[in-house]
Amino acid sequence: MSASIEETNKLSPNYNQEGLITAIAQDAQTKEILMLAWMNAEALEKTLSTGQAHYWSRSRRQLWHKGATSGAFQHVESVLIDCDQDAVILMVNQSREGACHTGRRSCFYRQIDPRDATLRIVKE
Amino acid sequence: MSASIEETNKLSPNYNQEGLITAIAQDAQTKEILMLAWMNAEALEKTLSTGQAHYWSRSRRQLWHKGATSGAFQHVESVLIDCDQDAVILMVNQSREGACHTGRRSCFYRQIDPRDATLRIVKE
Repeated sequence: MSASIEETNKLSPNYNQEGLITAIAQDAQTKEILMLAWMNAEALEKTLSTGQAHYWSRSRRQLWHKGATSGAFQHVESVLIDCDQDAVILMVNQSREGACHTGRRSCFYRQIDPRDATLRIVKE
Repeated sequence: MSASIEETNKLSPNYNQEGLITAIAQDAQTKEILMLAWMNAEALEKTLSTGQAHYWSRSRRQLWHKGATSGAFQHVESVLIDCDQDAVILMVNQSREGACHTGRRSCFYRQIDPRDATLRIVKE
Protein backbone atom coordinates (compact mmCIF):
# COMPACT_ATOMS: atom_id res chain seq x y z
CA MET A 1 0.00 0.00 0.00
CA SER A 2 1.47 3.33 -1.02
CA ALA A 3 1.63 6.23 1.38
CA SER A 4 -0.27 8.37 -1.08
CA ILE A 5 -3.56 6.51 -0.91
CA GLU A 6 -3.48 6.85 2.86
CA GLU A 7 -2.60 10.53 3.09
CA THR A 8 -3.87 12.01 -0.15
CA ASN A 9 -6.83 14.36 -0.28
CA LYS A 10 -7.83 12.78 -3.59
CA LEU A 11 -10.75 10.39 -3.56
CA SER A 12 -9.72 7.22 -5.40
CA PRO A 13 -11.87 4.34 -4.17
CA ASN A 14 -10.17 0.97 -4.31
CA TYR A 15 -13.00 -0.98 -5.93
CA ASN A 16 -12.80 -4.78 -5.77
CA GLN A 17 -13.00 -7.00 -8.82
CA GLU A 18 -16.78 -6.62 -8.77
CA GLY A 19 -16.39 -2.83 -8.81
CA LEU A 20 -17.55 -2.43 -5.22
CA ILE A 21 -16.47 -0.97 -1.90
CA THR A 22 -17.95 -1.79 1.50
CA ALA A 23 -20.31 0.70 3.14
CA ILE A 24 -21.26 0.81 6.82
CA ALA A 25 -24.29 2.85 7.85
CA GLN A 26 -23.89 4.25 11.37
CA ASP A 27 -26.48 6.25 13.26
CA ALA A 28 -25.12 9.80 13.44
CA GLN A 29 -26.61 10.40 16.91
CA THR A 30 -26.37 7.09 18.79
CA LYS A 31 -23.36 5.69 16.85
CA GLU A 32 -25.19 2.39 16.52
CA ILE A 33 -24.12 0.44 13.43
CA LEU A 34 -27.27 -0.09 11.39
CA MET A 35 -26.19 -2.18 8.41
CA LEU A 36 -23.41 -3.17 6.08
CA ALA A 37 -23.85 -2.98 2.32
CA TRP A 38 -21.94 -2.35 -0.90
CA MET A 39 -21.46 0.57 -3.25
CA ASN A 40 -20.31 0.91 -6.82
CA ALA A 41 -19.08 4.21 -8.23
CA GLU A 42 -22.60 5.30 -9.17
CA ALA A 43 -23.99 4.54 -5.70
CA LEU A 44 -21.21 6.57 -4.07
CA GLU A 45 -21.75 9.47 -6.47
CA LYS A 46 -25.52 9.44 -5.91
CA THR A 47 -25.05 9.30 -2.14
CA LEU A 48 -22.73 12.31 -2.21
CA SER A 49 -24.85 14.33 -4.64
CA THR A 50 -28.28 13.64 -3.09
CA GLY A 51 -27.43 13.26 0.61
CA GLN A 52 -29.44 10.04 0.73
CA ALA A 53 -27.84 6.61 0.97
CA HIS A 54 -27.58 4.65 -2.27
CA TYR A 55 -26.07 1.18 -2.43
CA TRP A 56 -25.49 -1.54 -4.98
CA SER A 57 -27.79 -4.49 -4.44
CA ARG A 58 -25.72 -7.58 -5.10
CA SER A 59 -28.80 -9.83 -5.10
CA ARG A 60 -30.83 -7.70 -7.50
CA ARG A 61 -27.76 -6.42 -9.36
CA GLN A 62 -29.02 -2.88 -9.48
CA LEU A 63 -28.62 0.51 -7.90
CA TRP A 64 -30.53 0.61 -4.62
CA HIS A 65 -31.87 3.90 -3.30
CA LYS A 66 -32.36 2.85 0.31
CA GLY A 67 -35.92 3.61 1.36
CA ALA A 68 -37.35 4.17 -2.12
CA THR A 69 -39.69 1.21 -1.67
CA SER A 70 -39.62 0.68 2.12
CA GLY A 71 -39.68 4.28 3.29
CA ALA A 72 -36.56 3.57 5.36
CA PHE A 73 -34.51 6.43 3.94
CA GLN A 74 -31.09 7.27 5.30
CA HIS A 75 -30.21 10.96 5.34
CA VAL A 76 -26.44 11.22 5.16
CA GLU A 77 -24.67 13.72 7.43
CA SER A 78 -21.15 12.79 6.42
CA VAL A 79 -19.10 10.11 4.69
CA LEU A 80 -15.78 8.82 6.03
CA ILE A 81 -13.35 6.69 4.03
CA ASP A 82 -10.68 4.37 5.38
CA CYS A 83 -6.91 4.27 4.95
CA ASP A 84 -6.85 2.09 1.85
CA GLN A 85 -10.04 3.59 0.39
CA ASP A 86 -11.99 0.35 0.10
CA ALA A 87 -14.59 1.04 2.80
CA VAL A 88 -16.76 3.99 3.80
CA ILE A 89 -18.89 4.91 6.78
CA LEU A 90 -22.13 6.79 6.17
CA MET A 91 -23.13 8.78 9.25
CA VAL A 92 -26.90 8.80 8.81
CA ASN A 93 -30.18 9.84 10.26
CA GLN A 94 -32.25 6.70 9.82
CA SER A 95 -35.96 7.15 9.24
CA ARG A 96 -38.15 5.51 11.85
CA GLU A 97 -38.80 2.42 9.71
CA GLY A 98 -35.38 1.08 10.61
CA ALA A 99 -32.52 -0.14 8.44
CA CYS A 100 -33.11 -3.90 8.49
CA HIS A 101 -35.49 -5.67 6.14
CA THR A 102 -36.68 -7.71 9.15
CA GLY A 103 -38.20 -4.52 10.52
CA ARG A 104 -35.55 -3.96 13.14
CA ARG A 105 -33.61 -0.76 13.50
CA SER A 106 -30.22 -2.47 13.00
CA CYS A 107 -29.31 -5.64 11.12
CA PHE A 108 -26.96 -6.54 13.98
CA TYR A 109 -29.57 -7.71 16.50
CA ARG A 110 -28.01 -11.03 17.54
CA GLN A 111 -25.06 -11.69 19.77
CA ILE A 112 -22.86 -14.78 19.50
CA ASP A 113 -22.42 -16.63 22.79
CA PRO A 114 -18.71 -17.53 22.79
CA ARG A 115 -19.29 -20.53 25.05
CA ASP A 116 -21.39 -22.54 22.60
CA ALA A 117 -21.62 -20.32 19.49
CA THR A 118 -25.38 -19.93 19.77
CA LEU A 119 -27.13 -16.69 18.90
CA ARG A 120 -29.26 -14.60 21.18
CA ILE A 121 -31.45 -11.71 20.07
CA VAL A 122 -30.23 -8.67 22.00
CA LYS A 123 -32.02 -5.89 20.10
CA GLU A 124 -35.65 -5.64 19.09
CA MET B 1 -33.13 -15.26 2.02
CA SER B 2 -34.93 -17.73 4.27
CA ALA B 3 -36.57 -16.64 7.49
CA SER B 4 -34.53 -19.21 9.39
CA ILE B 5 -31.13 -17.64 8.89
CA GLU B 6 -32.53 -14.36 10.20
CA GLU B 7 -34.29 -15.70 13.29
CA THR B 8 -32.38 -18.86 14.16
CA ASN B 9 -30.20 -19.14 17.24
CA LYS B 10 -27.81 -21.32 15.24
CA LEU B 11 -24.58 -19.72 14.09
CA SER B 12 -24.14 -20.48 10.39
CA PRO B 13 -21.93 -17.81 8.84
CA ASN B 14 -22.63 -17.12 5.21
CA TYR B 15 -19.04 -17.17 3.93
CA ASN B 16 -18.38 -15.71 0.49
CA GLN B 17 -16.63 -17.60 -2.28
CA GLU B 18 -13.29 -16.80 -0.65
CA GLY B 19 -14.54 -18.31 2.63
CA LEU B 20 -14.78 -14.94 4.36
CA ILE B 21 -17.23 -12.73 6.22
CA THR B 22 -16.83 -9.02 6.90
CA ALA B 23 -15.82 -7.88 10.39
CA ILE B 24 -16.22 -4.39 11.81
CA ALA B 25 -14.29 -3.48 14.97
CA GLN B 26 -16.16 -0.91 17.04
CA ASP B 27 -14.92 0.69 20.26
CA ALA B 28 -17.05 -0.76 23.04
CA GLN B 29 -16.99 2.50 25.01
CA THR B 30 -17.06 5.33 22.48
CA LYS B 31 -18.83 3.37 19.69
CA GLU B 32 -16.28 4.70 17.23
CA ILE B 33 -15.74 2.38 14.26
CA LEU B 34 -12.07 1.49 14.28
CA MET B 35 -11.54 -0.69 11.20
CA LEU B 36 -13.07 -3.10 8.75
CA ALA B 37 -11.45 -6.45 8.05
CA TRP B 38 -12.24 -10.03 7.07
CA MET B 39 -12.59 -13.32 8.92
CA ASN B 40 -12.53 -16.93 7.84
CA ALA B 41 -13.96 -19.70 10.03
CA GLU B 42 -10.69 -20.11 11.94
CA ALA B 43 -10.41 -16.38 12.67
CA LEU B 44 -13.96 -16.31 14.02
CA GLU B 45 -13.37 -19.39 16.14
CA LYS B 46 -10.10 -17.98 17.55
CA THR B 47 -11.76 -14.65 18.29
CA LEU B 48 -14.56 -16.35 20.20
CA SER B 49 -12.30 -18.76 22.07
CA THR B 50 -9.52 -16.32 23.03
CA GLY B 51 -11.45 -13.05 23.42
CA GLN B 52 -8.90 -11.29 21.21
CA ALA B 53 -9.62 -10.21 17.66
CA HIS B 54 -8.31 -12.47 14.92
CA TYR B 55 -8.81 -11.71 11.23
CA TRP B 56 -7.84 -13.16 7.89
CA SER B 57 -5.22 -11.06 6.15
CA ARG B 58 -6.16 -11.03 2.48
CA SER B 59 -2.83 -9.46 1.48
CA ARG B 60 -0.68 -11.92 3.44
CA ARG B 61 -3.13 -14.79 3.03
CA GLN B 62 -2.79 -15.89 6.63
CA LEU B 63 -4.49 -15.79 9.98
CA TRP B 64 -3.86 -12.41 11.60
CA HIS B 65 -3.87 -12.11 15.38
CA LYS B 66 -4.39 -8.37 15.59
CA GLY B 67 -1.68 -6.84 17.77
CA ALA B 68 0.66 -9.84 17.80
CA THR B 69 3.33 -7.81 16.04
CA SER B 70 2.15 -4.21 16.59
CA GLY B 71 0.93 -4.45 20.17
CA ALA B 72 -2.44 -3.08 19.05
CA PHE B 73 -4.51 -5.89 20.55
CA GLN B 74 -8.27 -5.77 20.52
CA HIS B 75 -9.97 -7.28 23.56
CA VAL B 76 -13.40 -8.43 22.49
CA GLU B 77 -16.37 -7.72 24.76
CA SER B 78 -19.03 -9.13 22.46
CA VAL B 79 -19.68 -10.20 18.90
CA LEU B 80 -22.86 -9.31 16.99
CA ILE B 81 -23.90 -10.92 13.70
CA ASP B 82 -26.23 -9.49 11.09
CA CYS B 83 -29.50 -10.74 9.61
CA ASP B 84 -27.99 -12.77 6.77
CA GLN B 85 -24.95 -13.85 8.79
CA ASP B 86 -22.30 -12.49 6.46
CA ALA B 87 -21.00 -9.69 8.70
CA VAL B 88 -20.05 -9.33 12.35
CA ILE B 89 -19.33 -6.47 14.71
CA LEU B 90 -16.62 -6.93 17.32
CA MET B 91 -17.22 -4.64 20.30
CA VAL B 92 -13.64 -4.14 21.46
CA ASN B 93 -11.39 -2.45 23.90
CA GLN B 94 -8.61 -1.21 21.65
CA SER B 95 -5.13 -1.03 23.12
CA ARG B 96 -3.61 2.44 23.11
CA GLU B 97 -1.56 1.78 19.95
CA GLY B 98 -4.68 2.26 17.85
CA ALA B 99 -6.27 0.10 15.19
CA CYS B 100 -4.86 1.63 12.02
CA HIS B 101 -1.47 0.74 10.57
CA THR B 102 -0.92 4.46 9.95
CA GLY B 103 -0.74 4.91 13.71
CA ARG B 104 -4.19 6.42 14.05
CA ARG B 105 -6.83 5.12 16.38
CA SER B 106 -9.34 4.49 13.58
CA CYS B 107 -8.82 3.72 9.89
CA PHE B 108 -11.70 6.09 9.08
CA TYR B 109 -9.88 9.40 9.59
CA ARG B 110 -10.84 11.17 6.36
CA GLN B 111 -14.13 12.71 5.38
CA ILE B 112 -15.31 13.08 1.80
CA ASP B 113 -16.38 16.60 0.88
CA PRO B 114 -19.54 16.05 -1.18
CA ARG B 115 -19.06 19.32 -3.08
CA ASP B 116 -15.87 18.34 -4.85
CA ALA B 117 -15.14 14.78 -3.63
CA THR B 118 -11.91 15.78 -1.93
CA LEU B 119 -10.77 14.23 1.34
CA ARG B 120 -10.11 16.04 4.57
CA ILE B 121 -8.40 14.51 7.61
CA VAL B 122 -10.89 14.84 10.48
CA LYS B 123 -9.27 12.55 13.05
CA GLU B 124 -5.68 12.41 14.20
